[in-house]
Amino acid sequence: MTVGVLGLGHIGGSLARALRAAGEEVVGWDADVEVRRAASEAGVDTEAPVAEADLVVVATPLRDLHTDVASMLDAVDTARTTVTDVASVKGPVLAAAAGHPAFVSGHPMAGTERSGWGAADPDLFRNAPWLVLVADGAATERVAAVCRLALAVGARPVPIHPQSHDRALATVSHLPHVLAAALTLQAEQHLPLAAGSLHGAARVAAGDPALPTAMVDLNREAVEAALVHLTRTLEQFRAAPDPARWFVSARAVWDRFNGRDLVVVERPLTPTGLRAVGEVGGHVIAVGAGTFTAEVPR
Amino acid sequence: MTVGVLGLGHIGGSLARALRAAGEEVVGWDADVEVRRAASEAGVDTEAPVAEADLVVVATPLRDLHTDVASMLDAVDTARTTVTDVASVKGPVLAAAAGHPAFVSGHPMAGTERSGWGAADPDLFRNAPWLVLVADGAATERVAAVCRLALAVGARPVPIHPQSHDRALATVSHLPHVLAAALTLQAEQHLPLAAGSLHGAARVAAGDPALPTAMVDLNREAVEAALVHLTRTLEQFRAAPDPARWFVSARAVWDRFNGRDLVVVERPLTPTGLRAVGEVGGHVIAVGAGTFTAEVPR
Repeated sequence: MTVGVLGLGHIGGSLARALRAAGEEVVGWDADVEVRRAASEAGVDTEAPVAEADLVVVATPLRDLHTDVASMLDAVDTARTTVTDVASVKGPVLAAAAGHPAFVSGHPMAGTERSGWGAADPDLFRNAPWLVLVADGAATERVAAVCRLALAVGARPVPIHPQSHDRALATVSHLPHVLAAALTLQAEQHLPLAAGSLHGAARVAAGDPALPTAMVDLNREAVEAALVHLTRTLEQFRAAPDPARWFVSARAVWDRFNGRDLVVVERPLTPTGLRAVGEVGGHVIAVGAGTFTAEVPR
Repeated sequence: MTVGVLGLGHIGGSLARALRAAGEEVVGWDADVEVRRAASEAGVDTEAPVAEADLVVVATPLRDLHTDVASMLDAVDTARTTVTDVASVKGPVLAAAAGHPAFVSGHPMAGTERSGWGAADPDLFRNAPWLVLVADGAATERVAAVCRLALAVGARPVPIHPQSHDRALATVSHLPHVLAAALTLQAEQHLPLAAGSLHGAARVAAGDPALPTAMVDLNREAVEAALVHLTRTLEQFRAAPDPARWFVSARAVWDRFNGRDLVVVERPLTPTGLRAVGEVGGHVIAVGAGTFTAEVPR
């Protein structure tokens, strides 16, 4: 199976390098000729057409990624090729793909404040969740191909329902990006005094501002809801006579998460079987023919 | 010079181990006999009285650290011994010390979500800011001793005015702790999907809840002001038609900070000379007799 990667930036470049490190054939393309040359030196085939690969990953910048998905679905032989993507907001991508049976959307939950091929890291995806959007009636062999791609680079495929992606991501990713910017602006004059609590929270604000801007623009309703939720939480915190219970509760959340006991299960390779794993906080560890294996909390 | 460390938890234990690694004599004490035994095995003298060291660092839990500072100032020969501390809120400590000339307050800006001697890390302070509170009329040789302590463990002494500590820390540390808890509670059901943006921001919420609880309890007014500031920023963000400028501004803050050009200067060892370095975002790199050397932004 050859993998085509369109867009060799931080995510696409890391994916191409990770696949090469795993011994896979990779065809790649980037609009920047210098990036193509560097990728070629790293063993990526930048001459063959990306659209002729068995699995094509669209990894162009978020703002217009949906138009690249639509173009790719027009360009490939959809009887043979599966198209996936890495967008961190799914509304526009899903609308552009319009339920095309050759499209299975994905989202590797990895990245740093760096960007571009120069920041490509073949270990970027190791142990990271890789969300795989599984619609009702999805072609399970195509879903399986995206899961195997994630597994090949050391990630943990987490099947989820397409409709739950953007709301969940607003809380788990887009909100932290907004807070990182707000904290940075508020703490500017005190940065030389900062420790890990600030650097950890604000780190992503040092990245390319185009990414969080597009996240918020493309997912504005869910991000606003997440901001309203947070603001209400902070108001309750300020009004509470005793802050201890907040910190105790938050610690307990991490204790439960970090201490959860995972067991291996085998399930039929169906949309509901796959999503059931993601819904309980599990992830796929292997995909066979007709069944898959997953780790799920006991 | 011997250093005494009272309280061998994450901070005190890391300090004791870092000083031992630097070849310094360390006398240590912890209420937990198992911790004392482990520290003794690591080369810390747990038999001699901490109060007889030349420099005593009070590193007990934040909630009651100020009472330990007062007790230590009663116990030491203040003509010979300087007492310092590591508290992350200074109001109670400064009140307890009541301007005692043998006391120079300090605050290493380091720590993780772990706690206890078992988490002690001799490299914890490397390149971390170590705030040194320099009051008008401070005994500069005692301030110098605290700076040298920080330098001995690889930290960057940042002299600041005692009155500016708690307000700055509310923004740069206590607010991120509150946000870490709020984000954790809000994102609980989505943690298996989370990437670095969430983990970086919420990591400290996995730590001992007693620390952020005490931070907020002891610095409530400044933390509330920081929360009000943040809430106002988030409201402006929601009301803004274009989020780009927030993210562009935040990125520019980090670019200026990470790209700042530091030059070495020599200054007279006076309270105002020391504080002037911290006020412009610099830090002490060496302390001589009557002068000190610092790196400051050009």
